[in-house]
Amino acid sequence: MLTVAAPVANAIDAFSRLPGIGPKTAARLAFYLLRAPEEDVLALSEAIRDLKERTLFCQQCFNIAEADPCAICASQERDRSIICVVEEPLDVLAIERTREFKGLYHVLHGAISPMDGVGPEQIKVAELLARLNVEPVAEVLLATNPNLEGEATAMYVARLIGPLGIRVTRLAHGLPIGGDLEYADEVTLTRALSGRQVMQ
Amino acid sequence: MLTVAAPVANAIDAFSRLPGIGPKTAARLAFYLLRAPEEDVLALSEAIRDLKERTLFCQQCFNIAEADPCAICASQERDRSIICVVEEPLDVLAIERTREFKGLYHVLHGAISPMDGVGPEQIKVAELLARLNVEPVAEVLLATNPNLEGEATAMYVARLIGPLGIRVTRLAHGLPIGGDLEYADEVTLTRALSGRQVMQ
Repeated sequence: MLTVAAPVANAIDAFSRLPGIGPKTAARLAFYLLRAPEEDVLALSEAIRDLKERTLFCQQCFNIAEADPCAICASQERDRSIICVVEEPLDVLAIERTREFKGLYHVLHGAISPMDGVGPEQIKVAELLARLNVEPVAEVLLATNPNLEGEATAMYVARLIGPLGIRVTRLAHGLPIGGDLEYADEVTLTRALSGRQVMQ
Repeated sequence: MLTVAAPVANAIDAFSRLPGIGPKTAARLAFYLLRAPEEDVLALSEAIRDLKERTLFCQQCFNIAEADPCAICASQERDRSIICVVEEPLDVLAIERTREFKGLYHVLHGAISPMDGVGPEQIKVAELLARLNVEPVAEVLLATNPNLEGEATAMYVARLIGPLGIRVTRLAHGLPIGGDLEYADEVTLTRALSGRQVMQ
């Protein structure tokens, strides 16, 4: 890459460190920005810097926020009797997009994975139990990922919460909407069968 | 997106303005950066800013460069008798990667496209002719894209250069290496047939 100007090479290099962006996409992005209006480029640069400099973790739900407590934890309009437990801040965004859930969240920042050396003490499980002791929670909805680590984490947390007399629920498993039965994997199909519901 | 911290929403928004990056990928990138080491995030932010603040166009070949003339135009090791004409700076990068071409470049910054209102005067054609008048060029290799606009541009430039007594060549068309004859389109296959070469 000797023949590329250093700032261009640096940008390509920095872009290609991002997940899912290979060297060709990185080059395309860099050359796109070279032709983009200066204010757009500076806006992107500043938005990235502000991600680190203007965010913190809410010390209640551990979601990423601008203030502590975060907007959701501080809101008077949320149902404080239900806490949705997710693995990552991105999952909060996904659930918020549905506009179906009106409760509070708790971000674990990971899932239990002995293979990767992640135990319960590496994620925010103790912090969840501490909340349940002081907050008036009636239900904990476990929304960890539907994979091995997510299921293990959900089961572990469910077992801890059980004795507290709080209702513990899990997101439903089954066929994705818009999906094709023919292409569904066996595990999903098994879950869809065992979780079948009476039609009204 | 009311429930996302403003710096995160800004970053998602800025990322999703990039070509080929939809809102979901933009969110994934933003949340990845939230967890990435601070120096990596600042390096990306600065690399993007430097794209605008530390680059210029070489006034000889119109490639993107740190200095004018650029490293290629200033190099004593390049063959100054051949100029490769490309549409975009990214194309220079693609050709340099082959390590096969040792001559100079000329970046047109576009292709003739009457449909988009781009005529010869909107791209760096006059600048190319000016170079041919003063530089000791023996061959002009037209490496515009193998599509309608690229072909039209190559033909237009070839007709202008013809009377100057300079050899005008075009990148070969044919089957891509690793490709499958069965999936080749008719135009490519026609070109591969008409351009067939004697095997040694």
